[in-house]
Formats: sequence, structure tokens, C-alpha cells
Amino acid sequence: MTEHRPGESMRAEIDQQPAVFAGVMSRRGDVAKVGSLIAARRPRFALFAARGSSDHAALYAKYLTEVLLKLPAGLVSPSTTTLYRAEPDLTDVLYVTVSQSGGSPDLVEATLAARARGALTVAVTNTADSPLNEAAEFSVDVGAGPELAVAATKTYSATLLTLYLLVDAIRGQDGVAAHGIDEIAARALAAEGVEAAVARMRFADWVVCTGRGFSSATAAEAALKLAETSYVSARAYSGADLLHGPIAALDSETSVLAITSVGAGGDAMAEVIDVVRRSGADITTVGSAFGSAIALPRTAEEVAPIIEILPLQRLALELSLARGRDPDHPRGLSKITKTR
Amino acid sequence: MTEHRPGESMRAEIDQQPAVFAGVMSRRGDVAKVGSLIAARRPRFALFAARGSSDHAALYAKYLTEVLLKLPAGLVSPSTTTLYRAEPDLTDVLYVTVSQSGGSPDLVEATLAARARGALTVAVTNTADSPLNEAAEFSVDVGAGPELAVAATKTYSATLLTLYLLVDAIRGQDGVAAHGIDEIAARALAAEGVEAAVARMRFADWVVCTGRGFSSATAAEAALKLAETSYVSARAYSGADLLHGPIAALDSETSVLAITSVGAGGDAMAEVIDVVRRSGADITTVGSAFGSAIALPRTAEEVAPIIEILPLQRLALELSLARGRDPDHPRGLSKITKTR
Repeated sequence: MTEHRPGESMRAEIDQQPAVFAGVMSRRGDVAKVGSLIAARRPRFALFAARGSSDHAALYAKYLTEVLLKLPAGLVSPSTTTLYRAEPDLTDVLYVTVSQSGGSPDLVEATLAARARGALTVAVTNTADSPLNEAAEFSVDVGAGPELAVAATKTYSATLLTLYLLVDAIRGQDGVAAHGIDEIAARALAAEGVEAAVARMRFADWVVCTGRGFSSATAAEAALKLAETSYVSARAYSGADLLHGPIAALDSETSVLAITSVGAGGDAMAEVIDVVRRSGADITTVGSAFGSAIALPRTAEEVAPIIEILPLQRLALELSLARGRDPDHPRGLSKITKTR
Repeated sequence: MTEHRPGESMRAEIDQQPAVFAGVMSRRGDVAKVGSLIAARRPRFALFAARGSSDHAALYAKYLTEVLLKLPAGLVSPSTTTLYRAEPDLTDVLYVTVSQSGGSPDLVEATLAARARGALTVAVTNTADSPLNEAAEFSVDVGAGPELAVAATKTYSATLLTLYLLVDAIRGQDGVAAHGIDEIAARALAAEGVEAAVARMRFADWVVCTGRGFSSATAAEAALKLAETSYVSARAYSGADLLHGPIAALDSETSVLAITSVGAGGDAMAEVIDVVRRSGADITTVGSAFGSAIALPRTAEEVAPIIEILPLQRLALELSLARGRDPDHPRGLSKITKTR
């Protein structure tokens, strides 16, 4: 048996993402079938339930639903079911539970309860025979393959891609914005600027990640990845929320990661970045907008989060190693967290 | 003209809260009228739009809606309207915009757009003649009086109380859980343990605030208050989410504020607190549960957030002063933040 090198699982899974994306795209007919079954039921409202990284995938799906499907959408707290036994009428509601493992008892319970109250339930998991797939009426398989590292990487990005394909299929389209995304991902993984960002952030204690619109999900996931692998104090704010209070906590000891992709969300970041610069904080920009420090290939805005997270996973990995940690074995974490 | 003493505006507004609550309760007939008009329209879904502290009030209202009204509810991102021009069908949707000033252009625009698309729009503001009140079909006045300090205190808590009364009125009840809340608030403001917590947290760089269920809102608001007045790196996690990743970032240099009130949410915190203690983090418990370090009077769980935040506002104020800051003048902040 060979010795484990720190971070080797996480690195391998990061590198698999172009191939994983190609696999997801090749099976998009399966996702489309579920999408047309959902469309036939004409849901009027969408709710997304998830925890951890999957919650950031759900945030992305909420934007997709509002913008592409023109349906009102919300993120639900499983605890209203599991702690408070709330019993809403969920007729006409599309209730999507997103979970890499499909094994969190609270999500299974919340899904069963939603189904019993009339919701059209859909499980999006990376584990085709999970309890969550049993609980939901329809299932969509992310198909990213087994993930060994505790920090979710390929399951996160493949879940985003799957959710995009699902939402696009519900509106009768075939995911055109994601065509060729495997090759775009390979280019994004080779983006320059990650090493320089690691060097800049090596001694940072306080990292703020920020993005707007679709890229809010990227900021949230980047902050979680940094916190769980490098033990930095990281948090995410939407660019708009950052200006409402938290901006006061930024100073020359703060490291800011700003997501700056081409599109309405990225355009709206210009003002945020100006204010951040005036605070004296160190700033690293990541995205497809012109002049980003970590420059990424341009995509349609609705699929940009699938690409934006890739160099940030590399950043989390390399920063963890630079700080002498093993990101494959974060303290205090195991792969499935059982909460109620 | 007398000299400004650091924090005097924030302190005065914190201390006004029992009287403000008495005023809100005395006008609850006005809130009840709007509640019955809403009930007559039989909304099937609720959406809440807000930013900053008001976003935490909206989070509380989301729990109230799910648990007390048994309606599915979500927090909306104004940016899907203002950035992406999303056009969802909002028939049967109750769309509540929460804003202390009622002056944020993005919230006004999102409310107008929601109304145009069929939503029943309600503005909850502390400024009765604001543009937001113009934009919405119905308005509820929080009536906390002018707030001079940049950090929202009395407008936050009075907004929570108003939202509770509104939701309870929609289900035809008169806010019984809040009867006597002015006196309970006075006792909560006198709670012991705040000075000790200030001493413990004086040199803390990284503060994690955590709560579950209704008290998730308290944790979120406490983290914002600490960040904007004391410039500490503070962030909030629901107790459940904390165990999904961020727990890895906790160590002996982390200060944790845990909300521990009597009820299902507080009970579910027991496991979280065990895990936090094992991480070696410093922990301060706040709430009505037996043995909390900052012990609060017991209330029904659905109104506990109105009380829990009070000693945490004092903590933010005193910690800011102990660190040599003036919480009335946080750097980089003004009272109304205009984002799109």
C-alpha cells in the first residue's frame, strides 16, 4: 500500500472534472426525460432543500429557476419540517432536494413530508440508490463517480451542471449554454494566477468571498472550501449585501476574492470592487471579465458558476498544502453529516 | 452643542426597545387589519425581499410563515429582477418587502415588478411615507421611531415583532405569544453575562454565531452587528450547516456565540454545542435554555428571536467600545445603502 500524499484525493477529483462534465453531457437525455415529466405537471413554485456544498448548488438552481423558468423559487430549511413539524400545502410545488450522498436523514424526512403534502419531489444525488432517491418521486443522477476527498469538488460542479440541464429541459431546451463545457473546464483548470493568489493569501486570516447574481453561489462555495480545507476564517456575501454592513469589517488585513464574470452579475460587481479597494483590503478577482487576476474562459452567464469554482478549488487545495494541512483529512469532518 | 460620546446613539436606541415594543403592541390593531386583508386574498406562497439586517428579519418571517401559516416561503434575491429581468408569474404569491428605510432602489424596483406580475405586495418599513410604501399595495408601519445609529437595533427587533404580529394576524390570532414582551425585553436587557462575554471576546479575531430554527435569524443578526461595529470577522451558520464543513475551521482561537433557547431549535443545539466544545473553541451560550451563560427570560419559541438579540446588541456595543471604536460611526457605512 502506498503512502497517502496530502491532498492527492482532492487533486485527483479536481482534475477529473472535464471528464465528469463530458459524462454528464453524454447522459443529458436522461435528465431531459425527467425535465419533461416535471414540465408536464406545470409546477408554479419551486423549493430547494440542501445542506453544505449542495446548498450552494441549490442557490444556483434558485437563480436558474427564477431567470430561465420564470417561476418563483426559494431555499427551504429542512428544520421547519424536522424540528417544527410545519405542514404547508405544497400542491403545485416542485420540491427539489440536492444531496451528494442522498443520505442525510433530515433531507430524506423533509422530502417524504413534502411529497405527502402534495409536492412534486425530485432528488438530485450522486448516489443513485440512496434513501433520498427512494423518498422522492423522480430522481436525477449526477453521475460524478465516487468522491473520496471530504471536500466536495467534482460532485459540486457536476451537480451544478446537472441542475442547469434539468432546468433547461423543463423549459424544453437542451442545455445549449453548456455545449463544450468539458473543454472549457479544462482551460479553466489551467488558468494562470492561482499560484500567485496562494502566495498572497498564505498568511491571510480573514477572507471574504463575494459575487452577484448567479455567481453568489460561487462565492458561497469558495468560502466553504477555504474554511474546510485551509481553516481560514472565510465567509461569503453577495456583493449587494457586502455593502450593507460587512464592508465596515474590511481593512488592510482582509483578503477579498471577488467573482467577476461577463454578464449582469459581473457588471454589478464593478461598484463593489471599487468600495473594496477603498477599504484597503487585498483583492483577487476571478472570472471571465476583462482584467480578472485569475482569468477564465467566457461562457453564458447562467453556466459561469460551473466554471468559476474550478480555479477556486485549486486555490483551496494549494492554500491548504502551503499552510501544512492535508485537505483530504480536514479535522472534525466526515463525508456524511447526519443532522436533524 | 455637546460632544458625541462613542456609542451613545446605539446605546440609547438599544435601551429604547422595551418602550418601542410597548408601542408596537399598542398599535397591533393596525397590523391586524392588514393581516386580515391578506388572509382574505388566500395567498398560497410567500416571498420575502430584504437586505442587511432586514434580511435577517425576513429569515425569521420565513420560519413564521412556514410554521404558523403552513405556507411555503422563500427569501428572494432582488437581483433576479434588477439584474436579470426575471419575470415569474406571481399569482397567489404574498410578496413582503422588509426595509427599515424603505428607500433601497433595488427593493422598490423588485416590489413594483412583483406587483405588476400579480403578487400581493406588502411593505414592512420604519418610514411610513417611503418609496417602498408607495410601491406596495399594503403597508405595515414598524413605528420604532427615528434611528440615528448606523447599526440597526430597535428597528430590527421592532420589525421582528411587527412581522410576528402580522403573520399571527393572517392566521386570525392576536399575537398572544408577544403579550408582555416589553417587560420581558427590559429583563433581557438587564441580563448578566454580557460584560464577561466582552472580556472573553476582546481579543477574538474570528467569531462564529450559531443557532437553529427561529434562532438562525438571531445568529445571523448577531454576526452582522459584531462585524459592523467591532470589525471582528464574524459569520453565522445554522447549527446544522456548521456541522457540514465549517466546523473544521473552528479551533482554540475561535470564539463561538451559540443561541440556546427553550424549544425545538434550542434542543437541537445540544449536539452542535458538544461538537463545538470538542473543537477547543471558546463558547458563550445565550438564551432561555437552562445554564446559558447569558440567561434570558423564557418565551414561546416563535418570539424568542425578538428577545435573544437584545443582549447581543449590548455585546456588540460594549465590544466595540472595549476595542476603542465608535459603533455610531462604523467606517465605510452610511444609513441607507443603494444597490441595484
